[in-house]
Amino acid sequence: MSPTNHQVRLAARPAGLPKATDWEFTSEAVPAPGPGQFVVAVSHVSVDPAMREWMNARPSYIAPVEIGAVMRAGGIGRVTMSGHPGFALGDYVSGAFGVQEYALSDGRGVIKLDTEVAPLTTYLGALGTTGLTAYFALLDVGRVKPGDVVVVSGAAGAVGSVAGQIAKIKGCRVIGIAGGPEKCRTVVEEFGFDAAIDYRTGNLRKALREHAPDGVDVYFDNVGGEILDTVLTCIARGARIIICGAISQYNEDQRRGPANYMMLLVARASMTGMLVFDYADRYPEAMAELAGWYRAGRLVSREQIVHGSIRDFPATLLMLFEGANTGKLILALDQG
Amino acid sequence: MSPTNHQVRLAARPAGLPKATDWEFTSEAVPAPGPGQFVVAVSHVSVDPAMREWMNARPSYIAPVEIGAVMRAGGIGRVTMSGHPGFALGDYVSGAFGVQEYALSDGRGVIKLDTEVAPLTTYLGALGTTGLTAYFALLDVGRVKPGDVVVVSGAAGAVGSVAGQIAKIKGCRVIGIAGGPEKCRTVVEEFGFDAAIDYRTGNLRKALREHAPDGVDVYFDNVGGEILDTVLTCIARGARIIICGAISQYNEDQRRGPANYMMLLVARASMTGMLVFDYADRYPEAMAELAGWYRAGRLVSREQIVHGSIRDFPATLLMLFEGANTGKLILALDQG
Repeated sequence: MSPTNHQVRLAARPAGLPKATDWEFTSEAVPAPGPGQFVVAVSHVSVDPAMREWMNARPSYIAPVEIGAVMRAGGIGRVTMSGHPGFALGDYVSGAFGVQEYALSDGRGVIKLDTEVAPLTTYLGALGTTGLTAYFALLDVGRVKPGDVVVVSGAAGAVGSVAGQIAKIKGCRVIGIAGGPEKCRTVVEEFGFDAAIDYRTGNLRKALREHAPDGVDVYFDNVGGEILDTVLTCIARGARIIICGAISQYNEDQRRGPANYMMLLVARASMTGMLVFDYADRYPEAMAELAGWYRAGRLVSREQIVHGSIRDFPATLLMLFEGANTGKLILALDQG
Repeated sequence: MSPTNHQVRLAARPAGLPKATDWEFTSEAVPAPGPGQFVVAVSHVSVDPAMREWMNARPSYIAPVEIGAVMRAGGIGRVTMSGHPGFALGDYVSGAFGVQEYALSDGRGVIKLDTEVAPLTTYLGALGTTGLTAYFALLDVGRVKPGDVVVVSGAAGAVGSVAGQIAKIKGCRVIGIAGGPEKCRTVVEEFGFDAAIDYRTGNLRKALREHAPDGVDVYFDNVGGEILDTVLTCIARGARIIICGAISQYNEDQRRGPANYMMLLVARASMTGMLVFDYADRYPEAMAELAGWYRAGRLVSREQIVHGSIRDFPATLLMLFEGANTGKLILALDQG
């Protein structure tokens, strides 16, 4: 009997937080690979804030997920059938496999993973798109240099935690912003930031002034909203603001713009959006450097793994918007 | 009898549009210049949107005008008394003389004007800080190149009209945004933009899509608010947005941020603030190039001159926020 492929499909475009009726669970036979194709049994699904954006109809950097389509997702798995000369049975791979148990692939955008270097899930964390995003955003867009004061929001999150660590490696003073005392402790003790500010308690602006009395040189923004507006009031002359995400806004119908954006003029500063895909031709060099730091123990990859089935995907996604995750959120599909 | 110096002083910090009680009219004897000083009889006062910002207590790129102080203003005048070896009686000069009839100066920031090159008032327009702002913003921050699609808001205004003309000289396709059919006509017919959109009528977004079907490469923003938000939806990949001003917001207590700023990520675009003062060491090269274009008839400087006394300053300032000016707004002090 051929195995069944269980899938999560987008049933409706959400208003606000995605709800149960926005999803549909389907199953179909695992497809047989043709020549140049292979099948991956997905073991881990990457759960990312950007997924919420892909569910909207509005034009973005990538086409919306169509209603009725398998939900787009990065993931990791193992090749179970192959008609592709480059991918053999048993290969561990990462790629955009979607929220499903089995994916048919022609190898485009699929990377073979070296389990000698790091555990599999690290390839969704510091050694995956997550790490690459932090790397290029901080170094290419942020152009950090030793001594810069770098502030990272979502500092306990997937990209933020790596961004702060790279900034430390590059000789910056790094301040994280996170929600709650436990995350703040992790940001300092595990990720090695110089300081962490709990935005939920006290006065963010006051804390920033204390930790960055001469202003913020680079702000790595993953959250948008009120935190972006507050950091804007504390930027140094010539500051670079990296717009990497805006998790506080993804579920809002009426989005909030940074009312203090004229600080860009006051400080002769810039605010620049980035997308990791633009750097695809430089992934190998970046991966080599990230892996080097990882092996040397200078870069910690933290993954928060939820064990379950693809039916647990909707609830896992919501954890991101509840601020329930530390590090990279991953849904592990414990099959069989 | 020594002449009297009539002055406009800031009496109170305005809420919203400046009103009569925010100003105070004073007079005092014209000061006698000491060694290294000279006195300027001010003939023309520069009237600028940024003045509204200087009236606020909030920190900005320049100290607020203190309550009771002479209102800060650029201006042009003639030296009437001098103890300064570099400035002789009769010299025409420009500088930050304030809203008053006579200014005492030590020469810092004061430039001698060559009336052979252009009429005096042009040194407040295309050949003044106005022109320099447009020049450096467009070329250094905007990094325009031939074929770029450049959109300029406040296109009939002082900086906007020059910015669009420089973009045309640099081989760009230039679209202006202005208020009302008359300004739009001027933008195309006098300033030579390829097209002008009247934001007061019809649908700005639709018009932008028509005039810039492949997106906007450079947006030179003088206005902020809804127009900035709309242009953001039409930017091309890698677009540069120059934040030069935000006249729509200067009188607002609750400022509006660009809600569509996440388009920066979608388009991998940047939004950068600029201040002309940072380029002071390059003013001579820029002035030479601007003057060359001016003499060659490639750059039109339009000044709208209100004749009156310093008592007309408050009403003249309000013209800016009513959109009543085309080109550089100047208050000419018709003394005697």
